[in-house]
Amino acid sequence: MKVLVIGTGAVGSFYGSLLAKQGAEVSVVARSDYEHVKVHGIEITSETKLGNYHFRPQAVVRNAAELTEKPDYVLLCIKVVEQADRVGLLKDAVGPDTSIVLISNGIDIEDEIARTFPNNELISGLAFICVTRTAPGKIWHQSYGRLALGNYPRGLSEKARALCSAFEQSGINCAASEDIVTARWQKCVWNAPFNPLSVLSAGLSTNDILSTQESFVRNIMEEICLIAKATGHTLPSDIVDKNIDSTYNMPPYKTSMLLDFEAGRPMETEVILGNAVRAGRKAGAPIPHLESVYALMKLRELKLAKE
Amino acid sequence: MKVLVIGTGAVGSFYGSLLAKQGAEVSVVARSDYEHVKVHGIEITSETKLGNYHFRPQAVVRNAAELTEKPDYVLLCIKVVEQADRVGLLKDAVGPDTSIVLISNGIDIEDEIARTFPNNELISGLAFICVTRTAPGKIWHQSYGRLALGNYPRGLSEKARALCSAFEQSGINCAASEDIVTARWQKCVWNAPFNPLSVLSAGLSTNDILSTQESFVRNIMEEICLIAKATGHTLPSDIVDKNIDSTYNMPPYKTSMLLDFEAGRPMETEVILGNAVRAGRKAGAPIPHLESVYALMKLRELKLAKE
Repeated sequence: MKVLVIGTGAVGSFYGSLLAKQGAEVSVVARSDYEHVKVHGIEITSETKLGNYHFRPQAVVRNAAELTEKPDYVLLCIKVVEQADRVGLLKDAVGPDTSIVLISNGIDIEDEIARTFPNNELISGLAFICVTRTAPGKIWHQSYGRLALGNYPRGLSEKARALCSAFEQSGINCAASEDIVTARWQKCVWNAPFNPLSVLSAGLSTNDILSTQESFVRNIMEEICLIAKATGHTLPSDIVDKNIDSTYNMPPYKTSMLLDFEAGRPMETEVILGNAVRAGRKAGAPIPHLESVYALMKLRELKLAKE
Repeated sequence: MKVLVIGTGAVGSFYGSLLAKQGAEVSVVARSDYEHVKVHGIEITSETKLGNYHFRPQAVVRNAAELTEKPDYVLLCIKVVEQADRVGLLKDAVGPDTSIVLISNGIDIEDEIARTFPNNELISGLAFICVTRTAPGKIWHQSYGRLALGNYPRGLSEKARALCSAFEQSGINCAASEDIVTARWQKCVWNAPFNPLSVLSAGLSTNDILSTQESFVRNIMEEICLIAKATGHTLPSDIVDKNIDSTYNMPPYKTSMLLDFEAGRPMETEVILGNAVRAGRKAGAPIPHLESVYALMKLRELKLAKE
């Protein structure tokens, strides 16, 4: 299994390293971390049973064009924000038999890639993980790690199954999903309230948000279910209750959007909230709480842009 | 006309000074500014045709109990926030014939005072003004200044009319209102969106808010109209359009809630938003945008309280 990971951020480095552990030939495209990773590889420090280990990619390049062979899988694990040129990153990496694997948060992240590479298999994935790049080539895996993978827009090919198995064998859970779009909406049920509310409150943890504004959180979650249903992806009827219960049982948690906000990085506002809102408007679903949160995030981002 | 102004903040000092200019005997209860105001009085610097002038109160006391005579009017012009003990401030100031005048923002600010002083006339007022206390005894009047006054819960007594006339003669507009509660809802149409949105965006001006999120602003305004109507105070059908137009025509403006937020002072969240939301819930009005904004303000305040 030949794999190319584009980017040596936290998510790509971590999942690439797991495949390398299973014997895959994993190369990486590194940009800002190129010098360090070329010489030292990548150190993974995991607080889980995975422990600490070293990942030395088969090749480290600045650009996929430098590689002579096209990979079986190219993993693009980046935040989908306005600044990200995903097509530009993929174009030199993809051969006729390359499966494109997108592991990113959000709703409707696949369409642009599916249209640009209509003849390539597209595997869409979701990562449930706390992992951080603390320095070039240094990855700190705090907790979780589960994946969900499946073909876009639906189905589960042999290659998708094989990728899932490799991840499973590396010691994490990987759910092979026939309906990854529905899985995306399921993840959005949690992301749509907690990510923006943590930012708009200027830094509250999930626990503070939920324990003081549970009904507001539920209203946002219900609206995501409504949009999912209106677009043909009915979610389980107990999904809101389960998300509420599991969040109460989590340790107080800083969302990824809050971490981006605090670090001054672009936030996934459009891909998590904006795309959900647009899908809801198109379907004519009543989503006033979601519209409010989206409008407020756009105002908060406008203020950031002015600073 | 004997008047006692409680507090030497911006609004009380300014409106008290106007009555003194018209020959009223105006005394003040000063707290933190007592030493300065006792010696120097109050300097008013107005950017309007009122110009700059000096206001020397007839008496300056620390507590209304020090005065031998009870006033015809006691003016309480303070922000209604949790920390404000309005009954405590009024109790030594009020005699059997004293009219209590409340000039404050918000919804349902009168009930507590009406219940505590059931035998006193209650005049409720709204100030449309930009005025700031820049130092003890220094008041900077930037613009506007219009008042609306009337008896609570409705009506217009001789004493209310007389007070209104005195303000009119001093050079500002004062609308004598038979239905001051409706006037409060009218002012809330503007306050309910712009005050919290300026804070939740971390400091955008009214113009930035309106020019990027007009439909969100309109939705909030419409919900205030809905609550007002449901509680018996139907507002003019063009009130939302008029507020939108006039805000576009205002210079970009920092709301009073944003000024409080930036100065670390308590905000009028409960009296502007919370009381409106509670009235809406009681009336069964659908107010999801307002509920969202209120929930987010409570989260933002929770974070402030933790800091």
